[in-house]
Amino acid sequence: MTAAQLLAMLVVMLGVAKIGGYLAQRLGQPAVLGELFGGVIVGRSVLGLVDAGNETVHLLSELGVVILLFAIGLETDLGRLFKVGATSLVVAVVGVVLPFVLGFFACRLLGLTNIVSIMAGATLTATSVGITARVLSDLGRLHDLEGQIILGAAVIDDILGLMVLSVVTGLAQGHDVTLRGILLTSAAALGFLVATILVGKIVVPRLFRAADYLDLPGTPTALALISAFGLASLAEACGSALIIGAFAAGLLVAGAPQVREIEHGITAIGHFFVPLFFVAVGASVDCAALNPLEPASRFALLVGGTLIVVGVFGKLLAGYAPFWFTGNRMVVGVGMVPRGEVGLIFAQMGLASGVFDAGLFGGVTLMVMITTLLAPPALKLLLGPPPVPEIELPCEGIEDLVNMA
Amino acid sequence: MTAAQLLAMLVVMLGVAKIGGYLAQRLGQPAVLGELFGGVIVGRSVLGLVDAGNETVHLLSELGVVILLFAIGLETDLGRLFKVGATSLVVAVVGVVLPFVLGFFACRLLGLTNIVSIMAGATLTATSVGITARVLSDLGRLHDLEGQIILGAAVIDDILGLMVLSVVTGLAQGHDVTLRGILLTSAAALGFLVATILVGKIVVPRLFRAADYLDLPGTPTALALISAFGLASLAEACGSALIIGAFAAGLLVAGAPQVREIEHGITAIGHFFVPLFFVAVGASVDCAALNPLEPASRFALLVGGTLIVVGVFGKLLAGYAPFWFTGNRMVVGVGMVPRGEVGLIFAQMGLASGVFDAGLFGGVTLMVMITTLLAPPALKLLLGPPPVPEIELPCEGIEDLVNMA
Repeated sequence: MTAAQLLAMLVVMLGVAKIGGYLAQRLGQPAVLGELFGGVIVGRSVLGLVDAGNETVHLLSELGVVILLFAIGLETDLGRLFKVGATSLVVAVVGVVLPFVLGFFACRLLGLTNIVSIMAGATLTATSVGITARVLSDLGRLHDLEGQIILGAAVIDDILGLMVLSVVTGLAQGHDVTLRGILLTSAAALGFLVATILVGKIVVPRLFRAADYLDLPGTPTALALISAFGLASLAEACGSALIIGAFAAGLLVAGAPQVREIEHGITAIGHFFVPLFFVAVGASVDCAALNPLEPASRFALLVGGTLIVVGVFGKLLAGYAPFWFTGNRMVVGVGMVPRGEVGLIFAQMGLASGVFDAGLFGGVTLMVMITTLLAPPALKLLLGPPPVPEIELPCEGIEDLVNMA
Repeated sequence: MTAAQLLAMLVVMLGVAKIGGYLAQRLGQPAVLGELFGGVIVGRSVLGLVDAGNETVHLLSELGVVILLFAIGLETDLGRLFKVGATSLVVAVVGVVLPFVLGFFACRLLGLTNIVSIMAGATLTATSVGITARVLSDLGRLHDLEGQIILGAAVIDDILGLMVLSVVTGLAQGHDVTLRGILLTSAAALGFLVATILVGKIVVPRLFRAADYLDLPGTPTALALISAFGLASLAEACGSALIIGAFAAGLLVAGAPQVREIEHGITAIGHFFVPLFFVAVGASVDCAALNPLEPASRFALLVGGTLIVVGVFGKLLAGYAPFWFTGNRMVVGVGMVPRGEVGLIFAQMGLASGVFDAGLFGGVTLMVMITTLLAPPALKLLLGPPPVPEIELPCEGIEDLVNMA
């Protein structure tokens, strides 16, 4: 790809994000929904202007989700997250186990093989923390108790998802999957988060205090990006996930003395990168495999339809699992529904390993797409319009980023 | 490349840019010099941590130079640029013709063939408007009369450089080069700039006024990026250059009602992208081909040394060409010396087309490197420390971007 081609593609992506975001808001929906739909339209399904499979486009969109998770970490109160930790843990675990089991048996009933059913069930376990957080932010509900529970559960879900993914990858490649391997993966993902936060709490404030001596404009924001990218990359190297590292970096940098300046810088950079991620997710969807007039697509549609029902139902029930929680458990359940990019990663892996054929991949993608597109309007319906803040929020930056489209 | 690898590379690039910029400023040099040197150290010559040849790294650095030129256009007063237009034109034309002729004959005297001598001469014609503008900005001299002349001449130089490049490419491929072809290329490059500014003066203000109705945060900055990327990409499609389109976009967007908000947004985004460009330029330099202990490198060093003398001398004389200009003509000449990325593009093309062997490529690269590294401290020496502004400058954003490292 030449630079001119990339620039033209970025024009299309930013343009469709703006137009889509505007139209979504006019229809009373979160802007992110418009960005996803816009992505579908400029992607390979309709206009074919944006090639989400191109390495650079993919990497730019990955930068987008890393920056989004960093910004969310920056806005997250670790104390509040811990307070709802047990509730989040229950929601996450039930939200992984239930959809997996339901999805597995549903696929078996449809006559699919064991390994295909396992892979389809695994895809159902995902929760897209990016989309959920964006929607909550669009609705001004990131700091509600329900929002914190969903956010915590989505983060834990990403950790659990990594474990599921490593197990399923092993099975797909015909390896022996040992309990020891599973435990090691889990320990790596969890250990990384804990170790990072413990070490970071000591190192990060010193680092940012030292940055004040450099006296170069933009240094705090650059240092924040270095923290985000560095921890994201370290997280993956430790067997955890990019977005978990970015989220942890945000939690840590929130304690820096220059946090307001950093919020402003990250918001501006996020205005560029974050829509690229959502448009790219939309653009990677292939609608052609789901044409109901095509007989070959009908079984894929049947599988997709079944997975949608099971996938929505499983995550909804997960919201009701913490029986002691007196808040709106329906909101928690709906917040866990969107599979987004995480679901697409699973589906893509199923295709690449040969477990899914093109039709099944289409069906699974349909489930990912519908659950992703369902949650924003459902949450909007449940939560109503954003509350008018009584005082200026300390998180003005992120609210801004969030509504940006 | 995986996302984790890209993130790790970005950490290195941003980190070395900050450290290099800080050290350069401590030594009384412009920050950009530190970023270039930092790039050499993390690049293939020394540590090999940053692969400037990787497609995505290359494209990100191209985004950096596009955003830099856009920001410079945003700060440029078109009226002032026109007022010094004749002076800039003379400096640019002499600064292309003289180094080309001198370089050609010097290479012939060293026993090189016609085509190699033409290619080496062509490389000498380049001026890196990015590096020159950054240095002038670092020194707070972008709005001086000399600064405006250099900027105008560097832009014209880019247009002339395109003509030279298309001719030399034709020769290298053994094509017939016709006067008609040369004139067509020139007309395309010039015509694009004129047409864009004429059409844009009508379209752009309406576009930005319409953006106010969208009422989505970040829209003006997104629209500014769309303009910059769109015109950059259009410029190349019309046979002009990316950076000319980006510069034109900046000139036009400067008239938007939301220009202050745009400056803030672009400055923050530039803090991320611009250093990537300078570090990547540094990282693409290969010092190994220039080891004086290696007999094979000695001829390359001789050619490189000759080209440095001829290249510096030719551009310096160009500064003295507008005999009617009573300002500091030495400053104008020195400002035209750095070849930067434009010179590297020529050198790379010489290598790719087989005109340069590895040794000659090394020699030409040496010339590019030395002229690029020479200009910032020389300008600093000639101009002294940045003037203290009496009132707040309207260009605060860019001054900030500029010192950012």
